[in-house]
Amino acid sequence: MKLLIIGGVAGGASAAARARRVDESAEIILFERGEHISFANCGLPYHIGEAIPNRDSLLIMTPARFKARTGIEVRVRHEAVAIDPDAKTITVLDHAKGIRYAESFDRLILSPGASPVVPDIPGIGDPAVAMLWTLDDMDRIKARVDAGIRRAVVVGGGFIGLELAECLRDRDVEVTIVEMSPQLLPPLDPEMASPLAVEMEKHGVRLLLGAAVAALRRTGVPDDSGTTELTVELADGRSFTTELVVLAIGVRPNSELAKSAGLAVGAHGGILVDEKLQTSRPGIYAVGDAIQVSDSLGRPAQIPLAGPANRQGRIAADNALGGAGTYRTTYGTSVVKLFGLTAAATGASEKALMAAGTPHEKIYLNPFSHATYYPGAEMMHLKLLFSREGGILGAQITGRGGVDKRIDVLATAMQAGLTVYDLQALELAYAPPYGSAKDPVNFAGFVAANVLSGKSDLAHADALPPDALLLDVREPAEFAAGAIPGATLMPLGTVRERFAELPRDREIVAYCAVGIRGYLAERILKAHGFKVRNLSGGITTWKLFGTGLRKNR
Amino acid sequence: MKLLIIGGVAGGASAAARARRVDESAEIILFERGEHISFANCGLPYHIGEAIPNRDSLLIMTPARFKARTGIEVRVRHEAVAIDPDAKTITVLDHAKGIRYAESFDRLILSPGASPVVPDIPGIGDPAVAMLWTLDDMDRIKARVDAGIRRAVVVGGGFIGLELAECLRDRDVEVTIVEMSPQLLPPLDPEMASPLAVEMEKHGVRLLLGAAVAALRRTGVPDDSGTTELTVELADGRSFTTELVVLAIGVRPNSELAKSAGLAVGAHGGILVDEKLQTSRPGIYAVGDAIQVSDSLGRPAQIPLAGPANRQGRIAADNALGGAGTYRTTYGTSVVKLFGLTAAATGASEKALMAAGTPHEKIYLNPFSHATYYPGAEMMHLKLLFSREGGILGAQITGRGGVDKRIDVLATAMQAGLTVYDLQALELAYAPPYGSAKDPVNFAGFVAANVLSGKSDLAHADALPPDALLLDVREPAEFAAGAIPGATLMPLGTVRERFAELPRDREIVAYCAVGIRGYLAERILKAHGFKVRNLSGGITTWKLFGTGLRKNR
Repeated sequence: MKLLIIGGVAGGASAAARARRVDESAEIILFERGEHISFANCGLPYHIGEAIPNRDSLLIMTPARFKARTGIEVRVRHEAVAIDPDAKTITVLDHAKGIRYAESFDRLILSPGASPVVPDIPGIGDPAVAMLWTLDDMDRIKARVDAGIRRAVVVGGGFIGLELAECLRDRDVEVTIVEMSPQLLPPLDPEMASPLAVEMEKHGVRLLLGAAVAALRRTGVPDDSGTTELTVELADGRSFTTELVVLAIGVRPNSELAKSAGLAVGAHGGILVDEKLQTSRPGIYAVGDAIQVSDSLGRPAQIPLAGPANRQGRIAADNALGGAGTYRTTYGTSVVKLFGLTAAATGASEKALMAAGTPHEKIYLNPFSHATYYPGAEMMHLKLLFSREGGILGAQITGRGGVDKRIDVLATAMQAGLTVYDLQALELAYAPPYGSAKDPVNFAGFVAANVLSGKSDLAHADALPPDALLLDVREPAEFAAGAIPGATLMPLGTVRERFAELPRDREIVAYCAVGIRGYLAERILKAHGFKVRNLSGGITTWKLFGTGLRKNR
Repeated sequence: MKLLIIGGVAGGASAAARARRVDESAEIILFERGEHISFANCGLPYHIGEAIPNRDSLLIMTPARFKARTGIEVRVRHEAVAIDPDAKTITVLDHAKGIRYAESFDRLILSPGASPVVPDIPGIGDPAVAMLWTLDDMDRIKARVDAGIRRAVVVGGGFIGLELAECLRDRDVEVTIVEMSPQLLPPLDPEMASPLAVEMEKHGVRLLLGAAVAALRRTGVPDDSGTTELTVELADGRSFTTELVVLAIGVRPNSELAKSAGLAVGAHGGILVDEKLQTSRPGIYAVGDAIQVSDSLGRPAQIPLAGPANRQGRIAADNALGGAGTYRTTYGTSVVKLFGLTAAATGASEKALMAAGTPHEKIYLNPFSHATYYPGAEMMHLKLLFSREGGILGAQITGRGGVDKRIDVLATAMQAGLTVYDLQALELAYAPPYGSAKDPVNFAGFVAANVLSGKSDLAHADALPPDALLLDVREPAEFAAGAIPGATLMPLGTVRERFAELPRDREIVAYCAVGIRGYLAERILKAHGFKVRNLSGGITTWKLFGTGLRKNR
């Protein structure tokens, strides 16, 4: 058995290591066109920001150590430039020696990864324009920061762009983010992303949302420190100068090699694989950012994430060596730290459900990370998407403490096929420093089950019934500190005495701070025959909508 | 509909609030023999320790606020002293007025809770002996600490005892824990509890494990500060003096009322209920610490936990008012913070599986809380128990960061019926500050699947084959810093060259730091025909066994 693996990061390195553990006697060769295998690509921004001071700690595995552990020959700076699936050979370009050679295989695993998208705009080739995808990219950006640049522009408000913006702020660089969509972190729904914008601005990041870079023009000559200046021109005519532009607008799968070998490729450029991760040619497998996957709605998608890539590598290795592993779905479970904030998601967003035409319900909650009587409890914003049958379709959480825990529990529940009814019954670990006797996940189940049973009818801040009476059931002091325009105050404790004051010919939307008292008011008023809804998530969620879509500041 | 609820904490308060939300018009009366409803019993130690400085923050809900919200009449210091299930009445003793009266019901929910076990030993009635179960108990202990006592003895090393010990240390009180079993936190297996003993001693807590209090004798007269001294005599003859003894050796269900009304009660004293939480008498439900539940092995058990009590309250309320909720199993999912340490468990322990005669496999892992290249990563100790078919039977984790998250994910997976194979595929949220591309939960799945498939044969530190060759496959520097006695060094990177040096007539147990390199060595040696096992969890887990069972210090 001779197994060749093309690509030595994430999926490729995992495949190689697993293959050796499965078969000690197989001949395995790992080809990597770059200099490094298995480096910590998710750590790149943090070395620039110096949270990770030691560059070497990003080199998880060197070719020499990998060889010592696995006996696998690693050929770095060897690039596979052609595959002949019929002859079962690949052509390799040895960049060090400048020569080409052929290598035969019994099985082949492709893990070529993805590459940053580079928009076709004037000035994009300027030396002050960088990407952040490889260690070289990182070194280049860090060198500029170390040299003392004062201003940088990050194009793209996704995971990498946001992490880099934080890390540049940690180095006292003035940062502007230019993002085409009207929100940060497009995998989230806009209202759930709105706290990110607040947090970024609080930490001095300038946000240009709904804005596109039209051109980059070099201005002036290098100044005393050797840095130069670029003028960034936006599509809307505005312009400003900067010293560094980092592109982080997404990646495209590196599928050219597969395509030119006649392997089937999807509409978005991803290599097509079956559940065994086998390509359209038997004996050739593919994993990682380069492949097309099925998302949680069963749609073809490109979802470049490290976790799935690593697991795919293991599965492809098993299958290449005669095993029977399967890979079915990429749920897009993800999390990002932004200064003190954590944002996380799993499954489908509301945007994705709308685009797919999938019927769904949604609820918002604003629970605390742990028992409020124990110090350090922090509010999180939680959105749960589910079907009329109770199936969990997706979840998003923004907050501080405890966000990563709840998204992982919800991701596990969703992948296990649990329903919102099951969330009610989940027995999670409770002690005051860690949670509440009714965990936020249980609470999400309670609220969703109440919606499905008809116990609660929700109104949502993005679709308030236009003629409804807005009934604020908080206390007078809360109302005075800020209420939804047009709302009428009737504290919950008075609703049983005062409901006769309310109109019977008009829908009522009750709301409170986070949705709990509003629900209690809804139940009371429904018992008295009123047509009433509870504003999901209360005024806290309503405010997220107000700050979610912001442009052109 | 007239619903009476006996007991106003946790389950009772939850039941009352839910009942009102389900039925606005029902007549609901909540009886509580104490002064408070819905107080934060899990927060009591932390007010003594002053992590929670404000006592009022423990009073989650006052009778007046509860009435304002729910319209439910709350009668505190009203104790139900008799139930007539046939007449559908209860007899209530109004402690304030000293009178008894009858109240009729259509439905009745019992939430009488539990009471601390008080051992029958000489001196137990001394005023310097306290418990920690109610706000009054807390006030009494805190008053003693505020008055300046220097020494305290906590009898019992379970959740409450350990939390109290930490909080007393926070107040600079010298603390001795006396625990009958040879380990702290008996729900854990001893080796998993051993880091707790280390942490407690590191913070100045004196541990007397495997020790029992035989008698308490008053010595001397009150000193200048008004405190007195007690001599604590142990069963083994040792004795020492202290100023305060707190009993935390467990609780027993308050089922006398139910029993005297003819309701069926289990062998451990818990009120028997069906899946609807209905007692042996139709229309009478029971919830919380007072009921007998089924544990994860289907055995009858008393498991006093706040989370289950709260959820049972909701379910009983639904069912009392015509709904159809079910409660099946209490998994014992729990977590405790001890100084910088977190210990957590779900499902069955190995001890419980042995006692039940349930066949099981076990693995140990020592993964990090998040990517090691990102600052702050901390090692955790993880034990997973599973069946030959892959079913998850239980998990225990001790560590610092990220422990509560992983136990909740494993608890969710277990409750969802996922197998260890499914754990491999779970897509959890990864970013360097929160996890790893292969999360500890995935890793647990990988290791368990390797065991079930026969890819890996494990040895365990508590049952090392007596004649086996112990092969240390770490680097020489690691070996020199401390190895298992009798081990032979052969670093992993040299095994492929040197395996001929190893005996073929003797079993080999390979080990490394945490179990990963040992597994790689196992795979290499097996391919060459050796009989070899990998020591699960490596020398890190082996050390846990060494410190797990400690007595009489």
